[in-house]
Amino acid sequence: MTLEKGESMRGAVLYAPRDVRFEEREEPRITKPTDAIIRMSATCVCGSDLWPYRGIEPVTQPTPFGHEYCGIVEEVGSAVESIKPGQFVIGSFFASDNTCPICRAGYQTSCVHRELVGGAQAGRLRVPLADGTLVATPGLPPDDLIPSLLTLSDVMGTGWFAADAANVKPGVTAVVVGDGAVGLLAVLSAKQMGAGRIIAMSRHAPRQKLAREFGATDIVAERGDAGIARIKELTNGLGADSVLECVGTQESMMQAIRSTHPGGYVSYVGVPHGVQVAGQELFFSHVHLHGGPAPVRRYLPELIDLVWKRKINPGKVFDLTLPLEQVAEGYRAMDERRAIKTLLRP
Amino acid sequence: MTLEKGESMRGAVLYAPRDVRFEEREEPRITKPTDAIIRMSATCVCGSDLWPYRGIEPVTQPTPFGHEYCGIVEEVGSAVESIKPGQFVIGSFFASDNTCPICRAGYQTSCVHRELVGGAQAGRLRVPLADGTLVATPGLPPDDLIPSLLTLSDVMGTGWFAADAANVKPGVTAVVVGDGAVGLLAVLSAKQMGAGRIIAMSRHAPRQKLAREFGATDIVAERGDAGIARIKELTNGLGADSVLECVGTQESMMQAIRSTHPGGYVSYVGVPHGVQVAGQELFFSHVHLHGGPAPVRRYLPELIDLVWKRKINPGKVFDLTLPLEQVAEGYRAMDERRAIKTLLRP
Repeated sequence: MTLEKGESMRGAVLYAPRDVRFEEREEPRITKPTDAIIRMSATCVCGSDLWPYRGIEPVTQPTPFGHEYCGIVEEVGSAVESIKPGQFVIGSFFASDNTCPICRAGYQTSCVHRELVGGAQAGRLRVPLADGTLVATPGLPPDDLIPSLLTLSDVMGTGWFAADAANVKPGVTAVVVGDGAVGLLAVLSAKQMGAGRIIAMSRHAPRQKLAREFGATDIVAERGDAGIARIKELTNGLGADSVLECVGTQESMMQAIRSTHPGGYVSYVGVPHGVQVAGQELFFSHVHLHGGPAPVRRYLPELIDLVWKRKINPGKVFDLTLPLEQVAEGYRAMDERRAIKTLLRP
Repeated sequence: MTLEKGESMRGAVLYAPRDVRFEEREEPRITKPTDAIIRMSATCVCGSDLWPYRGIEPVTQPTPFGHEYCGIVEEVGSAVESIKPGQFVIGSFFASDNTCPICRAGYQTSCVHRELVGGAQAGRLRVPLADGTLVATPGLPPDDLIPSLLTLSDVMGTGWFAADAANVKPGVTAVVVGDGAVGLLAVLSAKQMGAGRIIAMSRHAPRQKLAREFGATDIVAERGDAGIARIKELTNGLGADSVLECVGTQESMMQAIRSTHPGGYVSYVGVPHGVQVAGQELFFSHVHLHGGPAPVRRYLPELIDLVWKRKINPGKVFDLTLPLEQVAEGYRAMDERRAIKTLLRP
C-alpha cells in the first residue's frame, strides 16, 4: 500500500499573495509515535485560506497549504492504538489529544496539546495525535460520499458549531450572516437542528439557491443597517433568536449583534479580522456571544453518521472539482467568487 | 396612610460631579393608569451612581437620583390589577411590562416598554408599569429583613445574574473580578448556586472578609497579568469555568476573559466604560460571553423567597446606614471607599 517515495508527494505551497505553486514537497514521515500518515482521498480550499492568499494575513516564507483532509491511513506511529492502516479517516485542522480537560469539555481546537495541521493540499499528510484527532468511517466510503465526508474536516463542522453556539433549537428563528461555504452549511445545520425559520443573508443568486436547498426559508439581500432593518421587520421588530456570523469582519459582526433580540444568541466562527466590539453596545444588546475555531472533532462521530446514512449532503457546497495539480486555479476561482468552494482530487 | 403633601418628598438631586443635594422635590403622582406610588422603606447608593458622581458620565441638568427601592404601596393607577395599596414591594431599576416577548424570555431590563426608574433616593417614588415591575413580599417584612430585601432591587439581582450568566453550577470553579457590593453578592450567588470553589479577587481586607463570609474559598489580591497568572496557577494552568466580571473597565474585562478556560463562561454586569473587546482575542479565547443590565425582575420571586426564609443575607453588604437626608455623605463614603454600600432610611 505504501506509495513509491515522491509518487504523490506534490502539494500546494503559498509563496506570496496570489502565488500558489504545486510542487514537489518533502515526503511526510512519522516523526512522533502518536503520528499517522494518510494518503489523501480529497482535499479542498478553505475560505480562511483566502486571507493569506489575498495578502491580508502576511506570508513570510513559502508555506505548504491546506488543512481540510480525508483519506486512507497508510502508516501509524508505535503509540497509536485505535487508528489502523487501511481505515478511511477524517480529522480536524487542529490535532488534539481528545483526553485533556479542554477536549473533554468539547473544545478540542483549544486542546492543551493542540497542533495545527498544515499542508493538506497534497498527496499525503502527517497527522499528529492520530488517536485523538482522527475518526474512522464505518467502512471505506463509496466515492460519491467523499465530498460530504471531506466537509466534516472543517467547513461543515464549522457551520454546525455556528448553529450550536448560537443555541439553535427546534422552532427558533435563525439568521445566517455570510453566504460562503460555512454560511451555507450553517443554514443546513440550523435546518438539521430544527430551526423553524432560517433567514440567509445573501446577494448572490447561485448561493441563494443553495441556501434554499439547504433549508433557508427567507433570503435577505440587504446588508449593514438596511439588512438589520429587514431582519427586524421579519421578527416583529425584535430581532432573531439565533444569529450565526460566518464572515469575520467588523460589519458582519455588528450586523449579527444588532439583528439579535435581547437574550438571544450570536455565534461567530470566521477568524475576525480587525474586529473590535464596543463593550457598552454589547452590554445593552443583551446577547449571548460565543464562537472561536470550531471544535469539529466534537461533532465528527455525529456528522459522519448523518452523512453515512445520507441524511445530509453538505458536499453540495463544492461547485468546482479540480485535479490537485490545478490547485492554483482552485484558489483563483474562489478569490474571484466564481466558485463557492473548490474540491481537489489527488 | 397618605402622607401630607410634601411631608416626605425630599430627595437626592445630583447637580454636578460630587454635588449631591437633599432637597424638596415635586410630589410624585399617578401619571399613567399603570403607575403606582410607593412610600420608601429604604433606598441606597449604587456603584453605578458613582460614574456620574465622579463626572465620568456627564450630568447636564439637576437630576433626581437613585434607582434601588423597596417600600409600601400608597396608591395605584386605575389599570393596576395585581399590586395593591398596603403591600410591601420591590422593583427593578427598569420598569417592565413583564408580558412582552423579551420579558417572557427573561430579559425584563430590555422590555419593549421599559422605562428607567429614577429619583428613588427620596421619600416617595412613582413606579411605572406597576403590575409588571413590582413584586410583593408574602407580608409586611420585619425590620431586620429590609436591607436584604432592598438589595433585590438591583445589587443582589445583579450579582445573581452575574453567576447565572456565567453558568455557575454545582461544582464549578468560579472567579469574581471586583469586590464592590455587586462582586461580593456575586460571591454569595455563586455559593448559593453550588460552585465548588469561589475565588474572589480583592485587595481590601474588610471586603476579603465579607467575601469569605459569603462563601469565597480563595482570595487573590493580584490584578491584571499577575492576577491572571495566579488564577491559572489555581486551576491547573487552564483557567476557571466561570468568571464573573463585576467592574466594567477594560482591565477587568480582559482579566476576566483571560482567566477563563476555553469553553468556559464570562459574565459582565457592570456598565462597561471605555471597554473594547478585540474580536480575534475573544475568538481564540473560546469563551462564552454574556451580560448586560441584570434582569433582576426575573429573579425577584426566587430571591424574595430565599431572603424571607433567611437562607441568604445579602443585606450584609450595607456597612453604612444613614438617614436619607445625609445622602451626600453616603456618596462620599462610597466614593472614598470608606463604605462598601450605603443604606438610606427616609
